[in-house]
Amino acid sequence: MSTKNNEMTIRPNGALQILSKQEANQLCDHSDTGLNDLLRRCSLAVLNTGNNIDCGEKLLEMHPDFDIKVQSRGRGIELIICNPPESAFIDGEMLEGLREHLFAVVRDLVYVRNNITDSGLFDLNDSAGITNAVFHILRNAEVLRTNEEPNLVACWGGHAISRREYEYSRHVGIALGERRLNICTGCGPGVMKGPMRGAEAGHHNQRFTNRRYIGLSEPGIIAAEAPNTVVNELVILPDIEKRLEAFVRLAHGIIIFPGGPGTLEELLYILSILLDPKNTQHPYPLVLTGDKGCANYFEEVKYFISQTLGQTALDRLNIQLDNPDDVASFMKQQMQVIKKDRIQTSDAYYFNWQIHIEADLQKTFEPTHQSMRALNLTKAQPAHLLASQLRCAFSGIVAGNVKAEGLRAVAQHGPFELCGDPEIMAALERLLNFMIEQKRMKIDAENYIPSYRILKTTQ
Amino acid sequence: MSTKNNEMTIRPNGALQILSKQEANQLCDHSDTGLNDLLRRCSLAVLNTGNNIDCGEKLLEMHPDFDIKVQSRGRGIELIICNPPESAFIDGEMLEGLREHLFAVVRDLVYVRNNITDSGLFDLNDSAGITNAVFHILRNAEVLRTNEEPNLVACWGGHAISRREYEYSRHVGIALGERRLNICTGCGPGVMKGPMRGAEAGHHNQRFTNRRYIGLSEPGIIAAEAPNTVVNELVILPDIEKRLEAFVRLAHGIIIFPGGPGTLEELLYILSILLDPKNTQHPYPLVLTGDKGCANYFEEVKYFISQTLGQTALDRLNIQLDNPDDVASFMKQQMQVIKKDRIQTSDAYYFNWQIHIEADLQKTFEPTHQSMRALNLTKAQPAHLLASQLRCAFSGIVAGNVKAEGLRAVAQHGPFELCGDPEIMAALERLLNFMIEQKRMKIDAENYIPSYRILKTTQ
Amino acid sequence: MSTKNNEMTIRPNGALQILSKQEANQLCDHSDTGLNDLLRRCSLAVLNTGNNIDCGEKLLEMHPDFDIKVQSRGRGIELIICNPPESAFIDGEMLEGLREHLFAVVRDLVYVRNNITDSGLFDLNDSAGITNAVFHILRNAEVLRTNEEPNLVACWGGHAISRREYEYSRHVGIALGERRLNICTGCGPGVMKGPMRGAEAGHHNQRFTNRRYIGLSEPGIIAAEAPNTVVNELVILPDIEKRLEAFVRLAHGIIIFPGGPGTLEELLYILSILLDPKNTQHPYPLVLTGDKGCANYFEEVKYFISQTLGQTALDRLNIQLDNPDDVASFMKQQMQVIKKDRIQTSDAYYFNWQIHIEADLQKTFEPTHQSMRALNLTKAQPAHLLASQLRCAFSGIVAGNVKAEGLRAVAQHGPFELCGDPEIMAALERLLNFMIEQKRMKIDAENYIPSYRILKTTQ
Amino acid sequence: MSTKNNEMTIRPNGALQILSKQEANQLCDHSDTGLNDLLRRCSLAVLNTGNNIDCGEKLLEMHPDFDIKVQSRGRGIELIICNPPESAFIDGEMLEGLREHLFAVVRDLVYVRNNITDSGLFDLNDSAGITNAVFHILRNAEVLRTNEEPNLVACWGGHAISRREYEYSRHVGIALGERRLNICTGCGPGVMKGPMRGAEAGHHNQRFTNRRYIGLSEPGIIAAEAPNTVVNELVILPDIEKRLEAFVRLAHGIIIFPGGPGTLEELLYILSILLDPKNTQHPYPLVLTGDKGCANYFEEVKYFISQTLGQTALDRLNIQLDNPDDVASFMKQQMQVIKKDRIQTSDAYYFNWQIHIEADLQKTFEPTHQSMRALNLTKAQPAHLLASQLRCAFSGIVAGNVKAEGLRAVAQHGPFELCGDPEIMAALERLLNFMIEQKRMKIDAENYIPSYRILKTTQ
Repeated sequence: MSTKNNEMTIRPNGALQILSKQEANQLCDHSDTGLNDLLRRCSLAVLNTGNNIDCGEKLLEMHPDFDIKVQSRGRGIELIICNPPESAFIDGEMLEGLREHLFAVVRDLVYVRNNITDSGLFDLNDSAGITNAVFHILRNAEVLRTNEEPNLVACWGGHAISRREYEYSRHVGIALGERRLNICTGCGPGVMKGPMRGAEAGHHNQRFTNRRYIGLSEPGIIAAEAPNTVVNELVILPDIEKRLEAFVRLAHGIIIFPGGPGTLEELLYILSILLDPKNTQHPYPLVLTGDKGCANYFEEVKYFISQTLGQTALDRLNIQLDNPDDVASFMKQQMQVIKKDRIQTSDAYYFNWQIHIEADLQKTFEPTHQSMRALNLTKAQPAHLLASQLRCAFSGIVAGNVKAEGLRAVAQHGPFELCGDPEIMAALERLLNFMIEQKRMKIDAENYIPSYRILKTTQ
Repeated sequence: MSTKNNEMTIRPNGALQILSKQEANQLCDHSDTGLNDLLRRCSLAVLNTGNNIDCGEKLLEMHPDFDIKVQSRGRGIELIICNPPESAFIDGEMLEGLREHLFAVVRDLVYVRNNITDSGLFDLNDSAGITNAVFHILRNAEVLRTNEEPNLVACWGGHAISRREYEYSRHVGIALGERRLNICTGCGPGVMKGPMRGAEAGHHNQRFTNRRYIGLSEPGIIAAEAPNTVVNELVILPDIEKRLEAFVRLAHGIIIFPGGPGTLEELLYILSILLDPKNTQHPYPLVLTGDKGCANYFEEVKYFISQTLGQTALDRLNIQLDNPDDVASFMKQQMQVIKKDRIQTSDAYYFNWQIHIEADLQKTFEPTHQSMRALNLTKAQPAHLLASQLRCAFSGIVAGNVKAEGLRAVAQHGPFELCGDPEIMAALERLLNFMIEQKRMKIDAENYIPSYRILKTTQ
Repeated sequence: MSTKNNEMTIRPNGALQILSKQEANQLCDHSDTGLNDLLRRCSLAVLNTGNNIDCGEKLLEMHPDFDIKVQSRGRGIELIICNPPESAFIDGEMLEGLREHLFAVVRDLVYVRNNITDSGLFDLNDSAGITNAVFHILRNAEVLRTNEEPNLVACWGGHAISRREYEYSRHVGIALGERRLNICTGCGPGVMKGPMRGAEAGHHNQRFTNRRYIGLSEPGIIAAEAPNTVVNELVILPDIEKRLEAFVRLAHGIIIFPGGPGTLEELLYILSILLDPKNTQHPYPLVLTGDKGCANYFEEVKYFISQTLGQTALDRLNIQLDNPDDVASFMKQQMQVIKKDRIQTSDAYYFNWQIHIEADLQKTFEPTHQSMRALNLTKAQPAHLLASQLRCAFSGIVAGNVKAEGLRAVAQHGPFELCGDPEIMAALERLLNFMIEQKRMKIDAENYIPSYRILKTTQ
Repeated sequence: MSTKNNEMTIRPNGALQILSKQEANQLCDHSDTGLNDLLRRCSLAVLNTGNNIDCGEKLLEMHPDFDIKVQSRGRGIELIICNPPESAFIDGEMLEGLREHLFAVVRDLVYVRNNITDSGLFDLNDSAGITNAVFHILRNAEVLRTNEEPNLVACWGGHAISRREYEYSRHVGIALGERRLNICTGCGPGVMKGPMRGAEAGHHNQRFTNRRYIGLSEPGIIAAEAPNTVVNELVILPDIEKRLEAFVRLAHGIIIFPGGPGTLEELLYILSILLDPKNTQHPYPLVLTGDKGCANYFEEVKYFISQTLGQTALDRLNIQLDNPDDVASFMKQQMQVIKKDRIQTSDAYYFNWQIHIEADLQKTFEPTHQSMRALNLTKAQPAHLLASQLRCAFSGIVAGNVKAEGLRAVAQHGPFELCGDPEIMAALERLLNFMIEQKRMKIDAENYIPSYRILKTTQ
């Protein structure tokens, strides 16, 4: 009747995490100013990898006895974990990859709290301050590497995709890996995993040992997209906007695979940046790709972009259907362009300081009925600002679909309402309907009830 | 209209191959005593990996302009290759894995010729002399490693298998890899690749860097089973018998997946050894495994073994259906048993000197109509000797199916004839018919014409 | 007649220093709030290694054209250096060891300024706050290493010593190195170099590759004790007190070789800690050693300690004359004691949190005529507090001998005056006279004029 | 009364020595065809490093209970050693460097016996056959490295030298090491150690990790010149001539420091090669260097060469007095010349196949009264042949001074007699007298009795 307590002690294996006594205490502190609650949520998500649950609340409910403490002693830091998910263990021993992820969580929670939030060194209301904070988080996580040529490709796309789409993303990964390119994704399953697993094989075929599979996550999404075990460098950014900025400044190019509203959010985010007049001259390779079966998906995306952002945006969509080798060769060539540009502009290879990101793309968008309703979804503004507003719309839809607060809000007050120019609204509705039809809204897609409502007329 | 000569120079990348002037000359020597012909055949096979052709003759016909020369100069050895297969290149550069395979071929051809065949140091008509030769070839290839605990699992099985069977073998590989076990196979596609590709993923999940994917091949089979790109240690043994002995003495356990007559040859080879009274006390883990769909396959194998070799042999078949984790856990545990035994018997971990292999399992069986007909397929002998005779029967069938000389012999004189005790013959026929039905005879299995004929009565 | 500007650009070679734009700007900032002046002084000292000048002012005068700028670009950070000392170069290329030292200076100046001084995260008036700051500086410099057993020995002693004493310290280093112990010193010449050079040879004899030669310095002393080229981990602490605390908490034992007043300062510092009643149970190996010729030196030290701190202090002096192997064996054994203690007290191996250091040993002692005169050199206090006061006295004498501000003060106002209990004063005078006689006061010892005056009676 | 047996078991630490059962047996075989006697002599010499005894017989007499056995088992090979010299141990554990040397001895004795002497693969009466044998021994010892640019400098000179000369050779080593050059010597004390110890420091200053300190020895000399502990690659060539050839073909340049008759033997050997008309165009840097105090030594050498070999030989002596940096810079520059030449002549960097070595320099010279008397020390022959004859004369003198057989022969029959052209004889006598005076004849130089007699007239 009573559950026996299953407690185990985990130490980093050759890793370098070192905490001061004070930091260890913060992580054990259950109070509101402490970090234990956050640590507990993130750790559980990390250990639950491979089990598809896209809701953090549900996960905590399923593991009510899960608990975690931190001690700094002996050869270094120790984590005492109570009742971890069984799937994290092989013959009673924690999978090394997951152990690394756990310690990455510890590292980032402590650093963000102390050095970013509490130190007063960064003005987080200022665009430059936010960029500087992102830089410091990445540097502290040791993902910025000198003496490496541009070779990092971010892969975006859905985490709930078909086997066919997964296999295609894996083949793109093989092609990238065999060209000695590294991979950066949002670090969950699906398209976050396929290119990494593929690149791993490609890297091995080339005996390429400097293999990097970088996962960028944030506390709000980590439960839904637990880092897959291929990820060998994990960073927990404090929020979705810093995570997106980290992608753009860290990677040297982006490939977008098919996905749902989250993928559209990402596409609109990068389009908003690339359409920004300040970035006209800035080289930044972007490719949209998928297997043959995705032809109509891309047609829908093109239609939506043409109806909302127009021809210039359409021109930036570099769609390549069913051709992993061409996609990879293109990226490989573009790395040379990036390299030349960084030399010319005296910019670092490991962090793109030059590209301009508007303050409204950096500030946290908190989706509420009010903020969603207030989005300016009209053409009476430059395309890059409209792209930014549209990205908020999709961000809100994602929240309404899978995030704890969003789900609560929709449960209480009904679906979020969006309004704007009629043709934008029509295009939006059409795209969203297509996604529902293709079951791209959430993992449990069978009985999807929209978390949004499109209002056809601006009120 | 005329094909331009496409010549390229390949150097080992950080590898250690060093040749004397004399050795380089041997490799360029087109005469009968030279090594160029052998080098050309093996190199072409290595570069043709991934393209399924199970006949070396056909391969040479398809690449009449392929040529290879060797020079020893500057920073080391250079290979000049004319008209290599395009699939070996990524954006014009040879895949590093294939480059390594090429240099392994060079290393082994030279060593076997000079140090084994010509030196007079080894009596190749003597059992101990053959074992010593196998040891020296493996040592020269640097696959014998001290300071490593027993952890090497040989995987045998078909190279022409279904996607389902491939996926199962890959999952077994993941389970082995996550237990930090290494893999050794015959190095072609199918079951030779699945466990390696899986182990690669499993090793990465565990951040296990001492990853070994050993491929053991021989000149007669390398064209049909070109080393897959996962193989990171390739050894070309001089013939099929030394290759089989290398497997048994190098690996610490064997897993057999479903396959065709080649797999039966392997199963009978290891059974002949394990049934040998001299090996009664010798621990040697053997598992037969496959996915659910293979249940009837294993039933047929069991029936065949029970009808021919009897209960003791049947007891050695450890069949585990559809359970990668159990298979891997069993192997992991057995490694401790092996370790203890090696310590007790003062034997090396890296080479099993203790296990006894009968001389007739070591001597080359050359399948001809005469030698096949002369096989003693009767029960009037100990089970381990019958197993040895049966293994020759399957060896001959493989030769008649896919090997150059065997194909020629069958084309000229009709199928090989086999005769023996009626119930053995009946069991043999039943098993072979089942394999034809399951299309396990050769890759191009559609219109298979048997290369053998079962004579029901002994003369 | 006119000196051509000799400008060169230096990049870290595989090192990991990465700066934000803002940090690079700080380092170029010549204003009072900028770091350029400090960077310039420290860099010049680092590059001037091997040339014995124990005064930073003189060094700057000798290199009026020396200048340094910092840029963050391309593959990482760049230093632009104008007119560096020639001795730093081999055939026109900067010695790699010095390049590393330069980037260590950059790393520490930036970190201390931003994260320690300006962040508000550390209360530097509080004992625990200071300890925490020391921990963070060492952690940021990556000298705290997990998964390493206690093996670090600090070596203290004079930088202006005879060839004989240097050779002895080198032999102690060999003996330590052959026992796989690592070395930590104040990083200049003499005793700071001998044990490192010796350990380097000892480590090589043992093929020990985890070789650490840690140098701890601070801006005020780096010119006088430029890091020798053996140092492969350099940390610039912000002041002398944090440097001493870093020694005590980082190392697992201390060896003190003969030296001058600086060495006495160090001896009194560690005695004050070890005599502290709170540390009675704390294991901390301390050895004083020297070659045969140092017998009378150690007699004088013993006499001084017996006259001032008494028998308990005398008991802590573990003097071993002329026996490198015994010294090293003792340290090696003590490492096991330390290890057990750290396990029992749940303390880290890489940082000694347990040992208590009194606040007055942590606070900066600024030697002025007033503060020197105010020292409480009487026995009317516990021995560990008297030791602390005496250490300040020696600290002031060092300042008056070689440090810029001390030299200025003495030049203006005459020697510092010290007063206290007559027997303490007598013992002090006797020891100082002995040191003058032995030319241990400063490198240019010929015409030494005392920077102090001993007042025999307390006024 | 009975001595307790002090037996210990040594295993290679991560090394790769693997023996077959048969090879292990050979090493334990005490019969004349076995290798145990040779193994015992060489092992004792290796373990006795640091203790200066220049006679192997004496060494064996001092350690009558020393014994060694070999087993191949468990994780690899094991050496069971009885009563080894205490100096080989630190706190009861064998110094890792010596352990490596022991296993190098095992490797080379086995390989030379089986693959060179007994295999019949090499015609050791043929010049090309001998060169090929040298190549194979070096390749088997893994000292031939591809992908490395020319960077290896051989240092020759006396093992019984003054502290001053030792220090100078160490400074040359530092200068070479700081230019990333590697060192190869005869591997004993004195000049065999100084440049290595210096290079070790220089390499560390440059953080140069590809550090090679190659020692080339042979069974007849290893007792007198036990490999110093800096040597990290040791090769035991079968005789003095193959050792000298190994030096010339492996190194890319030679520095000769002052020494005794052994050094003259080496100088005459390389001069014989460089003066050979077939090598006129071959670039091969040679420098003679020493500290200021060696000026008269070099004058004597110059005089001797001018009187015997004449001006052309004199021109090849590149004497640089007291200037480590110039010596090292010159060598560094010459490496580029070597590199170009090897590319042009398609020769390997790691083995000089091009340079011609006359058969009489390759054949073993066995010094007897007859063979010494028969030397053709006249000018009626080309200079390079006279150099070769003179080198034999010095070789015999060395044997009469320190080698077992030579000592015996001289004890029985009186000093070796040398005769030839009067001016050659006079020059020879003068040089030898100078060497006696400078105590360069043997370590125990006090009461040196010449092992030779110069006959003034040719009979």
